[in-house]
Amino acid sequence: MELAEPTIAQAVARCAAAGAQRVVIAPYFLSRGRHVQQDIPSLAAEAAAANPGVECVVAEPIGIDSLMAQLVENRVQAAALHGTAIDTAAAAGAAAAAGSSSSSDGE
Amino acid sequence: MELAEPTIAQAVARCAAAGAQRVVIAPYFLSRGRHVQQDIPSLAAEAAAANPGVECVVAEPIGIDSLMAQLVENRVQAAALHGTAIDTAAAAGAAAAAGSSSSSDGE
Repeated sequence: MELAEPTIAQAVARCAAAGAQRVVIAPYFLSRGRHVQQDIPSLAAEAAAANPGVECVVAEPIGIDSLMAQLVENRVQAAALHGTAIDTAAAAGAAAAAGSSSSSDGE
Repeated sequence: MELAEPTIAQAVARCAAAGAQRVVIAPYFLSRGRHVQQDIPSLAAEAAAANPGVECVVAEPIGIDSLMAQLVENRVQAAALHGTAIDTAAAAGAAAAAGSSSSSDGE
């Protein structure tokens, strides 16, 4: 949000330069946390103030939705049908590595 | 993930107790970060090892999907049609508050 470009300020300025009068900012977040409740509205307000004549509207976050339920269901079905069972030896190896140098999972 | 209950270990144990032989663990994450790549597979492997006869399969994260594109598009449309333009006075107030005590947004 404050790391990736374009920033909200940059993006709104570009929309304004392109003639936009109303800009929708859609938070790509699963839940209504601090970024959604405070940071994004604050950045949107600053962007709107910096571009007179442009309205900024902040959309709802992704949140709960029947499309999301369907998406997760699809992921579960795909894993159930085609997924590979996880290798429990990896867990045993990780446990053993706690007391030795047998881990191959460098970090 | 390690904070909310049931934990992966608890959930897999419950599924095993209910007679499951194959358990799908669906990461509720937008992208393939460290939790999805390392932490969840590791916890799933431990859970599988703790429940002999039970296979654990880790599903893909939510990620990129046409349903997600539709979901975000719906959020944008709703905001464009019914959203309230953000109050730029909030930004001005916040800026002023940087040098005074006029902010009403205590944090």
